Amino acid sequence: MGRTSDARNKLLDAAATLIEQRGYAALGVAEICTTAGVPKGSFYYFFESKQALALTVIDEHWATQRRQWEELLGSGHDPLRRLRDLFEATEEVQRTGQQQVGLVAGCLFGNLALELSNQAEEIRRRLQEIFEAQIDLIEQVVIEAKEQGQAGLSVEPREAARSIVAQIEGRVLLAKLLNDPGQLETLWRNCLDLLQVPAHARPTD
Amino acid sequence: MGRTSDARNKLLDAAATLIEQRGYAALGVAEICTTAGVPKGSFYYFFESKQALALTVIDEHWATQRRQWEELLGSGHDPLRRLRDLFEATEEVQRTGQQQVGLVAGCLFGNLALELSNQAEEIRRRLQEIFEAQIDLIEQVVIEAKEQGQAGLSVEPREAARSIVAQIEGRVLLAKLLNDPGQLETLWRNCLDLLQVPAHARPTD
Repeated sequence: MGRTSDARNKLLDAAATLIEQRGYAALGVAEICTTAGVPKGSFYYFFESKQALALTVIDEHWATQRRQWEELLGSGHDPLRRLRDLFEATEEVQRTGQQQVGLVAGCLFGNLALELSNQAEEIRRRLQEIFEAQIDLIEQVVIEAKEQGQAGLSVEPREAARSIVAQIEGRVLLAKLLNDPGQLETLWRNCLDLLQVPAHARPTD
Repeated sequence: MGRTSDARNKLLDAAATLIEQRGYAALGVAEICTTAGVPKGSFYYFFESKQALALTVIDEHWATQRRQWEELLGSGHDPLRRLRDLFEATEEVQRTGQQQVGLVAGCLFGNLALELSNQAEEIRRRLQEIFEAQIDLIEQVVIEAKEQGQAGLSVEPREAARSIVAQIEGRVLLAKLLNDPGQLETLWRNCLDLLQVPAHARPTD
């Protein structure tokens, strides 16, 4: 049992790294097995197909990221501070990745959304659920910010949360293209603008 | 000569369509030639490699889009109206594409930026130039908007232009993921927020 789940984890780790580096289409099962150090014959014992493996990579990545988002956005801090914590954590993830391999990898979900939305319906649906869940988590904080008079009266929380997620994805795209995690530094200011935070409620630091 | 450039154009059209539908890595030269109806032997007469073809596809797409952006953003209209025209045109492109093939294709540059930035240095550089050129074009309009008191005093035009481009890319990503061009409808409102357009200067329609 120990050895079995070892092989499965090795396949998942190898696939996550390779998908992050080169996308999905460019990979073959044989290469994933070689990188994982797992015999090719074992692959189909654990996964029905390359797509099934990719879905598991997506699910595991989201399970980890969701815990982080829930922790940051559900902390007892001031709502705007919680959003700022999320942006800083997002930048930190890209910066750490760059330090490790020399390249900004971008967002796994954004990368696969653009690569596969029109080719793999099951992956599209899974990614749709993940983005909606991200929007849900941010929406709750926007509602609180609005209740506390920190966001503009005309701000519609769900639409604002969607715009914040779009801004994160757009900024991560620029960070990847320019190999510069610093592109994410303005997310905080963008967020204050998108939430129409009045001047008196804007943190000064 | 006529026949020669016909074959080249057919290869470019086929590559543009296939890259839009399935990305770059998933394509082979043989498939591009079959789709174009051009003998495989001819391919290397026109293009040194698949990457050289992709660069030409990118350049031609940008030549067309740049003309459209310059026309819309350089018109004599009010600066905010020009930005609105750009967002409406962007939505229209995605909507028309969806009507033709049933799917929102997204932005060729954004798709390739996420797929290839870390794998093809020449493509990365070309896409960097294109995004910087887009930011330049928007920045000029933001400067004018600011001069006319339509944007907030603390708005930094280049950074605001960069944020608008990021919002476009993020929204196009959601439009592709959800196969819903309507995701681009809020770009106008996002732009007013990112430019801190005061309430009295916000168009009412």
